Amino acid sequence: MADTSLPLPPGSTIGILGGGQLGRMLSMAAARLGFRTHVYCPDPDSPAFQVTDRRTVAPYEDQAALADFAQAVDAVTYEFENIPSATAAALARTVRVEPSPSILDMTQDRYVEKSFISRNGLAVADFATVSGTAEIEAAAGRIGYPCILKTRRFGYDGKGQTRVERPADIPDAWSAIGGKPAILEAHVPFLREVSAIVARGSDGTLRSFDIAENRHENGILRSTTVPAGISAATAEAARAAGYRLAESLFYTGVVAVELFVVADGEDGERLLVNEIAPRVHNSGHWTEDACSISQFEMHMRAVANWPLPVPFRHSDVEMTNLLGNEVDNFAKIAALPDTRIHLYGKVGVRPGRKMGHINRLAPLRGR
Amino acid sequence: MADTSLPLPPGSTIGILGGGQLGRMLSMAAARLGFRTHVYCPDPDSPAFQVTDRRTVAPYEDQAALADFAQAVDAVTYEFENIPSATAAALARTVRVEPSPSILDMTQDRYVEKSFISRNGLAVADFATVSGTAEIEAAAGRIGYPCILKTRRFGYDGKGQTRVERPADIPDAWSAIGGKPAILEAHVPFLREVSAIVARGSDGTLRSFDIAENRHENGILRSTTVPAGISAATAEAARAAGYRLAESLFYTGVVAVELFVVADGEDGERLLVNEIAPRVHNSGHWTEDACSISQFEMHMRAVANWPLPVPFRHSDVEMTNLLGNEVDNFAKIAALPDTRIHLYGKVGVRPGRKMGHINRLAPLRGR
Repeated sequence: MADTSLPLPPGSTIGILGGGQLGRMLSMAAARLGFRTHVYCPDPDSPAFQVTDRRTVAPYEDQAALADFAQAVDAVTYEFENIPSATAAALARTVRVEPSPSILDMTQDRYVEKSFISRNGLAVADFATVSGTAEIEAAAGRIGYPCILKTRRFGYDGKGQTRVERPADIPDAWSAIGGKPAILEAHVPFLREVSAIVARGSDGTLRSFDIAENRHENGILRSTTVPAGISAATAEAARAAGYRLAESLFYTGVVAVELFVVADGEDGERLLVNEIAPRVHNSGHWTEDACSISQFEMHMRAVANWPLPVPFRHSDVEMTNLLGNEVDNFAKIAALPDTRIHLYGKVGVRPGRKMGHINRLAPLRGR
Repeated sequence: MADTSLPLPPGSTIGILGGGQLGRMLSMAAARLGFRTHVYCPDPDSPAFQVTDRRTVAPYEDQAALADFAQAVDAVTYEFENIPSATAAALARTVRVEPSPSILDMTQDRYVEKSFISRNGLAVADFATVSGTAEIEAAAGRIGYPCILKTRRFGYDGKGQTRVERPADIPDAWSAIGGKPAILEAHVPFLREVSAIVARGSDGTLRSFDIAENRHENGILRSTTVPAGISAATAEAARAAGYRLAESLFYTGVVAVELFVVADGEDGERLLVNEIAPRVHNSGHWTEDACSISQFEMHMRAVANWPLPVPFRHSDVEMTNLLGNEVDNFAKIAALPDTRIHLYGKVGVRPGRKMGHINRLAPLRGR
């Protein structure tokens, strides 16, 4: 393996596991830094294949394809936390993989993740591990109704979770999530959802983008606004939570931390950490157009052991996802003033599928 | 051919003739709009190949390869004015090619180009067509010394031109440019060099980026600064010159017009048009990081018949080219604050070769 204390020189190849829109934007950010990219994804229609130097179409379990991939690249990263951690671990035996594959083990299990966050002194919603209706009922009795039942593994964008309003809902909820090991979480009556997108270099350098405010619809991110409508102290606390988690994980790369802002007394605010995404994140897409450096470049710099600049935001911004057939209005959207449009080149529109996003810019009002 | 009055839908493929850094940045801009790109270039090491969906490695004269390319794409553009105009014209028989191939005929010949500019009522330096030492001497007698001898065809980045200080220089100058049909131009004692990067849509919409000031070294662009150190009236005149030329050409896409600012009386300024580049231009690279839309996206929108937004600049900026082995300092450059680095992925460093550029951002002072 190359000396990982040196920056990876331009012309090197960075491998990316996963070929969705995040892999696509990571690939373009790497190219701007003079790197070649090699995208590995089982889906031959992967959007990232359209903007990469090399492609491997193979299952994540294909050991021969993984060995060839490891040979062909100088470092590896991933776009998605549901990449099998065994895949990342196998690659890490012969090539630098960042963020560390062990982080996937943690974030692929909601119970392990929540426990980790909590152990680091950060507040989370009450939660319990459950593996059957009797355990759910017992846990719900303690946590209170309504509460949320979530599979421990392979959840994202609202998948693998359901709301439990009352004891009678429990059997249906348990089948709805497929009767798999789960956690039960308290419902959080939050004022706002925000995210902290932070980066950590392998030398311990910490960087943070401005805290962003998110609005979800049907479990899918609809829009992100910066600056968030929170106090400076709350923003600072969100950033500190991101830093603490990145440091505890000895993390290299960009990590997104989603937080709930809840009322605290008459006018106060406090934060609960909702989840950690060990990757660039939809709620950081605004950085590409409103900031001196994007989350994608920041991540690739960390993976390549390059210096991590202090980001500065030059504009206020609202990012809105284009879901499903909203993308059919591309010509109208492309005519909006001060709006940057990003389309992902996906083959096939499905309801709710993330097809692109827009960033609407406005002059800076404040942070 | 598709109805060219309709916007090309995302998922369409835009062909790009030429695979250098301009093709590379055009390809990434097209991808952000959801297009696929297909780069055609004779050089297998072309930087644009690293970020495109499809590649053709073939000479520009390969009729079979061109026919296949035309079949595979929904529209074609080019990154470089020295693409053979016959190549573009051959493609235009079956697919939309923008800017129009006829524009290449004009800009590939400095005499035809200067005559065109002059005929459109815009001032240029005195010039004459010459094809031998006697003609050079006669023309120099009229234009005055020093003057510049330039081949009519295939010049860029200071190539194919030489300075004539006195009559005794003429024989050497004539051999230096290879004894080819040439133009002799007056030397212009300019105050500044500026460029107007303008765009025109096929519906006649005109857009302009802020006027940029350029500094050349050894005939190669060294840096571009925005805003330029010129009066508002001069900036407006530069923009108007760009618009007039784009309109006269019924141009579709981004065109760069280089101008000299010369003293006019005690405090006045006036403009001479130096040359037209029918493409995105090195002096517009700042737009990618300091503006709401880049020249690359603006060009691709025009080619695809999409709306052309009014660009607004959110930051002051200085673009500096990274030439030859300056790129070896990548780690130091990447640590500069508020600086975006762009490397082109070129294989092989040569003295003076454009390997990348940086954009240093600063808060907006004014336009």
